[in-house]
Amino acid sequence: MSKNGPFRANSGRLTGVFKKPTFAANFAAIFPLCAVILNTLSAGVMPAPWKSVGAAGELAIDSSFTIAADSHLQSAAGRITRRIEKQTGITIIGGPKPTLIVEFEVSAPAYPTLGEDESYTLDVTPTGARLKSKTSTGALRGLETFTQLISQGQNGFKISAIHIEDRPRFPWRGLMLDVSRHWMPVEVVERNINAMAAVKLNVFHWHLSDDQGFRVESKKFPKLQQFGSDGHFYTQEQIREVIEFARDRGIRVVPEFDIPGHTTAMLTAYPEFASAPGPYAIERFWGIFQPTMNPAREETYAFLDQLLGEMAGLFPDKYFHIGGDEVDPTQWQKNDAIQAFARKNNLGNDTALQTYFTQRVQKILAAHGKTMIGWDEVLEPGLAPDTVIQSWRGQASLADAARKGYRGILSWGYYLDHLKPASFHYGVDPIIDGAEADRAGAKNVDEHVLGGEACMWDEYATAENVDSRIWPRAAAIAERLWSPRETKDVAVMYARLEDVSRILEAAGSTHRSYEPAMLDRLGRGEGLRILADASEDQEIDGRRNARKYSSLAPLNRFVDAVPPESETVRRLEHAATVAGPADIAELRARFTEWAQNDSRLEPLIEKNSLTVELVPLSRSLSALGSIGLRTLEFLFDGKRPPEGWIQQQVQAVDEIGKPIAEVQLAAVRPVRILLDRLAVNK
Amino acid sequence: MSKNGPFRANSGRLTGVFKKPTFAANFAAIFPLCAVILNTLSAGVMPAPWKSVGAAGELAIDSSFTIAADSHLQSAAGRITRRIEKQTGITIIGGPKPTLIVEFEVSAPAYPTLGEDESYTLDVTPTGARLKSKTSTGALRGLETFTQLISQGQNGFKISAIHIEDRPRFPWRGLMLDVSRHWMPVEVVERNINAMAAVKLNVFHWHLSDDQGFRVESKKFPKLQQFGSDGHFYTQEQIREVIEFARDRGIRVVPEFDIPGHTTAMLTAYPEFASAPGPYAIERFWGIFQPTMNPAREETYAFLDQLLGEMAGLFPDKYFHIGGDEVDPTQWQKNDAIQAFARKNNLGNDTALQTYFTQRVQKILAAHGKTMIGWDEVLEPGLAPDTVIQSWRGQASLADAARKGYRGILSWGYYLDHLKPASFHYGVDPIIDGAEADRAGAKNVDEHVLGGEACMWDEYATAENVDSRIWPRAAAIAERLWSPRETKDVAVMYARLEDVSRILEAAGSTHRSYEPAMLDRLGRGEGLRILADASEDQEIDGRRNARKYSSLAPLNRFVDAVPPESETVRRLEHAATVAGPADIAELRARFTEWAQNDSRLEPLIEKNSLTVELVPLSRSLSALGSIGLRTLEFLFDGKRPPEGWIQQQVQAVDEIGKPIAEVQLAAVRPVRILLDRLAVNK
Repeated sequence: MSKNGPFRANSGRLTGVFKKPTFAANFAAIFPLCAVILNTLSAGVMPAPWKSVGAAGELAIDSSFTIAADSHLQSAAGRITRRIEKQTGITIIGGPKPTLIVEFEVSAPAYPTLGEDESYTLDVTPTGARLKSKTSTGALRGLETFTQLISQGQNGFKISAIHIEDRPRFPWRGLMLDVSRHWMPVEVVERNINAMAAVKLNVFHWHLSDDQGFRVESKKFPKLQQFGSDGHFYTQEQIREVIEFARDRGIRVVPEFDIPGHTTAMLTAYPEFASAPGPYAIERFWGIFQPTMNPAREETYAFLDQLLGEMAGLFPDKYFHIGGDEVDPTQWQKNDAIQAFARKNNLGNDTALQTYFTQRVQKILAAHGKTMIGWDEVLEPGLAPDTVIQSWRGQASLADAARKGYRGILSWGYYLDHLKPASFHYGVDPIIDGAEADRAGAKNVDEHVLGGEACMWDEYATAENVDSRIWPRAAAIAERLWSPRETKDVAVMYARLEDVSRILEAAGSTHRSYEPAMLDRLGRGEGLRILADASEDQEIDGRRNARKYSSLAPLNRFVDAVPPESETVRRLEHAATVAGPADIAELRARFTEWAQNDSRLEPLIEKNSLTVELVPLSRSLSALGSIGLRTLEFLFDGKRPPEGWIQQQVQAVDEIGKPIAEVQLAAVRPVRILLDRLAVNK
Repeated sequence: MSKNGPFRANSGRLTGVFKKPTFAANFAAIFPLCAVILNTLSAGVMPAPWKSVGAAGELAIDSSFTIAADSHLQSAAGRITRRIEKQTGITIIGGPKPTLIVEFEVSAPAYPTLGEDESYTLDVTPTGARLKSKTSTGALRGLETFTQLISQGQNGFKISAIHIEDRPRFPWRGLMLDVSRHWMPVEVVERNINAMAAVKLNVFHWHLSDDQGFRVESKKFPKLQQFGSDGHFYTQEQIREVIEFARDRGIRVVPEFDIPGHTTAMLTAYPEFASAPGPYAIERFWGIFQPTMNPAREETYAFLDQLLGEMAGLFPDKYFHIGGDEVDPTQWQKNDAIQAFARKNNLGNDTALQTYFTQRVQKILAAHGKTMIGWDEVLEPGLAPDTVIQSWRGQASLADAARKGYRGILSWGYYLDHLKPASFHYGVDPIIDGAEADRAGAKNVDEHVLGGEACMWDEYATAENVDSRIWPRAAAIAERLWSPRETKDVAVMYARLEDVSRILEAAGSTHRSYEPAMLDRLGRGEGLRILADASEDQEIDGRRNARKYSSLAPLNRFVDAVPPESETVRRLEHAATVAGPADIAELRARFTEWAQNDSRLEPLIEKNSLTVELVPLSRSLSALGSIGLRTLEFLFDGKRPPEGWIQQQVQAVDEIGKPIAEVQLAAVRPVRILLDRLAVNK
């Protein structure tokens, strides 16, 4: 397996256009049964491995657990050991005989690079486990698989004997984190990098500058952080710490400094580089704003040469993101000098002006040894051929870029802040199927599409709840980017997502543990938690339209405390579909809880300024519980609903499903499933 | 206030016998109403301040919150600002005008010392707050009070206007943490030091060596950590980090190296200093063991001189703890050379032999500039007069020490690992009343009792759940040691404990957030959580007798996941006592949950090796829920119980209250309250 990889010939490095054989096709020819085996044997592992074959017996995981690994992997071995302690609750003391032997052929380069061989094989037998890989990076990936295989057996924790062969489908599997809209301290970044490693994501894309904040210490231009950050910025030492932290986990760090738009914070510090006279102030609202860099002044490029040069020295990765999205041309259009400059240089419109700017910046980056990445908008004639396009527009946009010879990564469909369900993201493949690609006129799309990135924009997330907006849904995207295209059963994905959600929390994410403290702040007792388990933060358009948000508005309401996708409700949907005896007991218990909840909750929330808005939501949940209980009676106790009852309840449930206080009662879904069953039964 | 303090004359340092005026008596004369004011105005603050007077108006706490403080307090100001962010969910950006001005007269010494002036005054008005103190340490204490005053108002978070004058009753308010029985990594230590600071505890007593592990890197005797720690030890750099961390919070760090008993781990590395031939192995069980240092060999003292000298250099505090407890004399009695040595030196018995050893060690410590502390057992004739006695035996033992002129601190009654309710610890005062003191023949006991220490021995706690065994109960002890002796209303204490419990979690403790992950490990769904909320880890004797525990036994069962005192049940007890309409709704909702819970839970737990032991517990809870529901009917729906029914149910509830799987159903308590009411009504 590891000798057949697409990246080996490049010795773990990639230059120029990325060549990617259609690995999936080859693999399917060699292991035709892999998808079937996968679904039956590796239920808990995410991303799903390419091949796994179970065997008899099991390996005990106890306090004598010991990893034997090269000194290069000591840090990883210690980390994985602590993870196993967290997963199992066992204090590991170690023993004389290694439980897991790790072997690799080549150490990773000084910093992770695009296209490293990440493949590995893992064999677990009752007497021990062996992890083999071409590179130390592959070993890191295999260690994460190993911990995910641990489960509870008759006599304690164990791994069932298994043989796994695994490798990624795409070499660029990223998470973008916006730290400008809301400040995200180093510990937030690091715990999310830990979670990324757990699901084999390998690029941390750090959106460091936007209208609402410039978040890196510049020693050359200290006014950037002094006036552009509200004091919330990373020191260069902290940046280096994060890069080392990511390196140790086989994760690249790609910085983004968004220019020439989205630059209000930078221009607050240096208004002389704007396209209209200042002064400027850090933007407190969300949207697209006018402050834009002046592309007609040489001083702008001299400034960028110094600043990007300083940052290029700070970030070792070959790739450097300059944003380039959503430029509002108003300032350019109103500035006579810029218009004169455009005419003089035959830049016929705003797009041409931005293209001129982009190409100047591209040359600056190249001089500092960097390859440029930009959002869709940078793709204009004359763009350097090694540029990578990150698409928020869609696969067709990537196919278009590919047709022109550019490599790309997909982010459309992977916007976590849109708060869509994991199943939505899971269904988005970076590569459109052959017919569509043909229609787009793109040849070899699969050679040019490097992968994708989940994006977390932080208008509606803070350090406190951001993990819950990223995880576990980003794990579904991680699987889309790692596992075979054919691995796409949504029910199986959700079953594994419950497992990996716990692994991610053990790895350091707080997406499960954040909620109680946020609810505690709103009030005491059980009632709020029951309401929260039944609720979801609505999709982003609802929040955008609900009220005028700004960076000064505290995100400490109920809507901020509830996750975008309720695990409780998902389980109830499953119970309503399967409807075995235990399922019916669970549904009845929940519906009873809901029905009774308002009488205990309303006295609490009506007195509190932060929760009074929840009164109608609480009443709705109790009404829903009552409908659910009656529906269960009609379905399973042999009673018949009165004429027209079902239709009335469906209407009532649909009404209950409408947002209140920016929250949706996800709880309507299982009740709706039962009502639909009742309608069919009748 | 601050000029009237007992510690000022010593310039923040204390030498020789500690002189402590009966401050409580003076104070009561000056502010006779303080207890009343306290109960009405500072409900949320713990420890309760000595004096607080409310006023009209409130100070808004929002994103513009800013502290103005001397550079000496910058770190504390940043920490408190982040705490407020956690408490409120507000991202603080700061503003031009300070919200809180902090002023103090004298900077703390390089490291905190016994007897520093910790008093402060705090004035909060609608336009701003001012914190004044004699020392910077007093300012640290006042900052913690400030954050605890924040509550939710009509228009967001605020502090009601108030004037506070505050100071500690005792100068030594400690928490002892055992890191030998189970390993506690640096982050566990640091988060608990953060929690200590939040409730104004000021001594971290670090129990670093015992039979089960020697936990500090020694550069002079590296075999100690190599053979005595299973690889679980603090490097000297980490020790220094923790000391700085504590210093920044005004907390002293007192190390304990327990000798001559409790030394199996040390003797594993250096058997030549034992009283019987080795080899030895790290002890895996709990109890009192035979391996004991050899008091008859000069080499032992040479070794201790080197080791304690090295450690004396590492820990800057003046006080140094040598344990001295629970020496099993078997090895001494069986060793002819030791017996000959004893005869030669007129050491007539084992106690005399230990006294000889203790006095040699005391001289070694004195030579390294340290004052010795030991447990009760070190108190024998000839002990140096500056020695501090830590009593696990009780106040009478301290009074006895005082009679002999020794200072002491109380730990009897403050053993958190005994898993008693907070109310028990709260009722233990370090100073017995006058009559008892007279019986003990001790004069001026209050001059010699420096305070007390909560003790957390870790036989039954790991890094994962140890916070929940310490907090919030240790906050009740902190109040006992800080607040007036007369502050002792248990109901008021519990009401404030709910508030401070959340503050402690915001400060970094994990005693609330640890539980979901531990329950998740045992199974999915709501049923386990409902069972857990109704359950408590039984008191320690139950665990000791239940099974043969060792350090290799994972503490990952249900009993380890549930706290020693259920907040849910305490609230239900309150509801059963008050029984207003909302209380009855809450009781009915809970009892219904319990009654229905077994039908959903049993199918889940009966299949799992870690949870099958809970089947009878789950059945008991459902039976209890049914009893509770019927009792509510009889009490509030006007029905009459059949003849003999109440008595039968009382018997059934008592039966249900017996431990199962080392867990007690605390849920019996509110049901029992209702049954008792019913019996009276009838």
